[in-house]
Amino acid sequence: MTDKDIITLAHGNGGFLTHNLIKQVFTSVFDNPILNIQGDSAIVKLEDNNIVFTTDSFVIKPLFFPGGDIGKLAVTGTVNDLAVSGAIPKYISASFIIEEGVAIDQLKAISESMQKTAENAGVKIVTGDTKVVERGSADKLFITTTGIGNLIYKDTVYKPSNMRAGDCVLLSGTLGDHTTSILSVRSEYPLKINTISDCAPLNDLTERLIRAVPKESIRIMRDPTRGGLATTLNEFTNGCGLSIEIEEAKIPCKQEVQAVCELTGFDLLYLANEGKLVVVCAKEQCRKLLGIMHSHPLG
Amino acid sequence: MTDKDIITLAHGNGGFLTHNLIKQVFTSVFDNPILNIQGDSAIVKLEDNNIVFTTDSFVIKPLFFPGGDIGKLAVTGTVNDLAVSGAIPKYISASFIIEEGVAIDQLKAISESMQKTAENAGVKIVTGDTKVVERGSADKLFITTTGIGNLIYKDTVYKPSNMRAGDCVLLSGTLGDHTTSILSVRSEYPLKINTISDCAPLNDLTERLIRAVPKESIRIMRDPTRGGLATTLNEFTNGCGLSIEIEEAKIPCKQEVQAVCELTGFDLLYLANEGKLVVVCAKEQCRKLLGIMHSHPLG
Repeated sequence: MTDKDIITLAHGNGGFLTHNLIKQVFTSVFDNPILNIQGDSAIVKLEDNNIVFTTDSFVIKPLFFPGGDIGKLAVTGTVNDLAVSGAIPKYISASFIIEEGVAIDQLKAISESMQKTAENAGVKIVTGDTKVVERGSADKLFITTTGIGNLIYKDTVYKPSNMRAGDCVLLSGTLGDHTTSILSVRSEYPLKINTISDCAPLNDLTERLIRAVPKESIRIMRDPTRGGLATTLNEFTNGCGLSIEIEEAKIPCKQEVQAVCELTGFDLLYLANEGKLVVVCAKEQCRKLLGIMHSHPLG
Repeated sequence: MTDKDIITLAHGNGGFLTHNLIKQVFTSVFDNPILNIQGDSAIVKLEDNNIVFTTDSFVIKPLFFPGGDIGKLAVTGTVNDLAVSGAIPKYISASFIIEEGVAIDQLKAISESMQKTAENAGVKIVTGDTKVVERGSADKLFITTTGIGNLIYKDTVYKPSNMRAGDCVLLSGTLGDHTTSILSVRSEYPLKINTISDCAPLNDLTERLIRAVPKESIRIMRDPTRGGLATTLNEFTNGCGLSIEIEEAKIPCKQEVQAVCELTGFDLLYLANEGKLVVVCAKEQCRKLLGIMHSHPLG
């Protein structure tokens, strides 16, 4: 590989090389009419003026892992934060902090993965920023995405205080796949396992669930990422005067994930997931919502 | 200083210490009713559904400099990107990538500075994220802010193709103050100068200018940050078939900034500014707009 193929500090100075990089790696991949105006900001139109707004930084190591990469994760994570708030995600911004020395081919593969994920989720990447930092000042690449969208029901906020005694907790699939896939490619855990990250946009599933039942029946939803299911349920019950009972034996998990937990001492309930959904709902809608989950590719 | 006062990896794992950090350093400082719902997303209401959306990552070294800090810069930069697009900035998200070992007091000072800047600019910090990376994996602190707001005139996009032969270029003040202030505190340039960064939100100034003249009279606006005035003017003329003539001798700059340019060989026209505005306008509105700039504290 020649110097031409890696990121240098000059790619970050705002001049000719910065413009070339942005064109070659980002705008040509995220190609859409809003992005192409290329001003300092994107001008977008939403359905209405009740806006859900969320941001997340992604610092995953390594950049590529079984079932995904930092780009897929960066779009998925922000789409899912909007989805579990009861919104239809529409537009995404992406800001890249790149360490000097990163291969331009890798960046391009990551932006292509972001675009593919955005298409799958029905969102557009409309604005962004690129910074380059000196070798040793960042861990290859950090991506921060921010998303906006409209609420499906204008006046419905999913929050812990909606929960009632007797409500059900639904979980959309096996736990721990994401963390396990990352561990499998980190050199400090040379595990011979083939777990694939569950990284996937949940907005199609959440929209189906929301539209299927009376709007107060879903109390709160969350994607149990960093901190896992245990942290999510803790956040739900914190200060609301209720407790949530789960039967550990009934929590679904893949055999190899179970094995990794036994080997390493990790607690399945604290492992990160990137394509799972937790829903607290009224008991009478539990079967219907579970049926929708079962019939969905991500359920 | 004890271990209790610095950021550790445990502050980033999504558990108890993460919640404490967010509460102690961020939500207690950015305190507002929207933020306090503390879901995965903020739910905000804008005036209408034509939304301007922009993002920027801030990687400045050192974190504190004469006239500002990374927090002030992170709010100002995003406010200014919205302002020069012709929008009224309303809501900001802030995502923090923190290197293990950073002092919590420093983080708190930075978030206080963000809050003060947000108040001055009339925007609210409503959602955010915090990640902690291992020592050596980031340069102390990176902040990514994303902003949304409404256009002052719904159907007006300020873009290079609006420019006409004979238009005037207005500049709101002296160039190079920001870069010079940063150089003065970097150890590789032990310069004995007292230049203060011009870092300031421009949205009050841009709104006054926009509202003062017929809406087509202002063709394009930009804050000449990274890459300086030269890069901004280059972006304006690129591909629009016009050229911009400037008289270098008339470009205002402080004596010490001039001296630094002579000593270091830096070109004033390429130095970064964080509180200056470039406006291209119809010739007949030039005096009026210049008058407004002169009467404004930032002009």
